[in-house]
Amino acid sequence: MIRIFEWIFCVFFGFSAVWGLVFDSFMVYPKWLYPEFVPKVLVWYTEHYKDPLPLNPPEWLQAFAWCEQLFLVPFSFVAAYAFYKGKQRWIRIPSIIYATHVLTMMVAYMYHLFMHDFSKQKYPGPTTSEERQRLITTILPFGIIPVLLLVFMVKEENYGMHGHFTHVPRHHSPSRRSERIAKRD
Amino acid sequence: MIRIFEWIFCVFFGFSAVWGLVFDSFMVYPKWLYPEFVPKVLVWYTEHYKDPLPLNPPEWLQAFAWCEQLFLVPFSFVAAYAFYKGKQRWIRIPSIIYATHVLTMMVAYMYHLFMHDFSKQKYPGPTTSEERQRLITTILPFGIIPVLLLVFMVKEENYGMHGHFTHVPRHHSPSRRSERIAKRD
Repeated sequence: MIRIFEWIFCVFFGFSAVWGLVFDSFMVYPKWLYPEFVPKVLVWYTEHYKDPLPLNPPEWLQAFAWCEQLFLVPFSFVAAYAFYKGKQRWIRIPSIIYATHVLTMMVAYMYHLFMHDFSKQKYPGPTTSEERQRLITTILPFGIIPVLLLVFMVKEENYGMHGHFTHVPRHHSPSRRSERIAKRD
Repeated sequence: MIRIFEWIFCVFFGFSAVWGLVFDSFMVYPKWLYPEFVPKVLVWYTEHYKDPLPLNPPEWLQAFAWCEQLFLVPFSFVAAYAFYKGKQRWIRIPSIIYATHVLTMMVAYMYHLFMHDFSKQKYPGPTTSEERQRLITTILPFGIIPVLLLVFMVKEENYGMHGHFTHVPRHHSPSRRSERIAKRD
C-alpha cells in the first residue's frame, strides 16, 4: 500500500519538476530563453481558462515563482528519485515542508482568482462567478497530491524507519534510536 | 538549553496569538467590531513605516489573513501552552507546518514591498529603494523566530521523546516504537 503512494508521489514530483522548469520559470526568466512552444502553451491556457496570472504574474506570484526555481524544482528531482527508491526516511520532513509551502501558495492563488477585479488587466481574467468557479475547479485538483503527501507523511511517523535496518536482526532494530535516547538522558 | 528555546517559542506564540487576534484580524472582519485604538495603531504604523498593506490588503494578503484567523491564531494559543509545559512531542510536526506557512507568507510580503509600484495607492507606500529597505529591515526580524522554530524542530528529531518515558525504566524506553515497527514488518 505504501509503495502505491510512493509511486504516485514519484510521478507527481517528476511531473512538477519538468513543468516548473519549462513553464512556471517563464514568469521570472528572460523570454528569449524559451522555444516558441512555451509561450504558445501559456497563451492557449490563459485564453482557454481565463487565468491571466502565469502570463502577467503580480509580485507575490513572482516571489513564489522564484521560490519554485530556487528550491522546489531542484527538490522535486531529488524527491522523485527518493520515492522511486522508496522508504527514504530523510524525505519525510522535507516533504511536509514542501507540501505546506505549495498549499500556502495555492490558497493565495485561489483567493486571488476568486476575489480580484480583473477588469483592468492586459490579459482576460474571470469576471462572472461561473468563470471564477470553473477556473478554480480546474486548478484545485493540483492541490490533491500535496494534501495527500502532507497527510501521508504526518501520519506515517515511522516512514522509512525499518528500511534502515533491513540487514540487521529484528531484535536489534530499534537499538540505534534507543542508544541515541540513552545518551541524551 | 532546550528549555530556553521552549520559553522563546512560548512567548512568541503568546504574542502572535494576541497580535493576530487584535490587529491582523482587522484585515478581514467588519471594522465596527474594533475599539478605537486598533485602527489608530494601524494608521500610525502605516504612516510611520510606509507599509500600506495592513490597512489596504490585496487579495493574496486577505487569503493569508483568513488562514491566520482560522488556523494560526487558535494554533498559537495551543502552541504557547505546549511550549510552556515543554517536551510535548506532538507539537513538533505542527510547528514545522506553522513555520513553513508563515515564512512562505513572509516571502510574498517582502517581495511585494520590495517590487510593487505603490504610486497609485490610497495609503502611502515605500517609493525609494531606501524606504523599501528600511521597511523590510523592520519586518524581517519577525521571521527570525519562525526560522529558529523550523530549524530547531527539524534538527530535534527526538524532541519530547524521552518525556513520554519518564516513569518507565531506561531499558524499556524504546519498546513502544519497536513494537509498532515489529507489528508492521
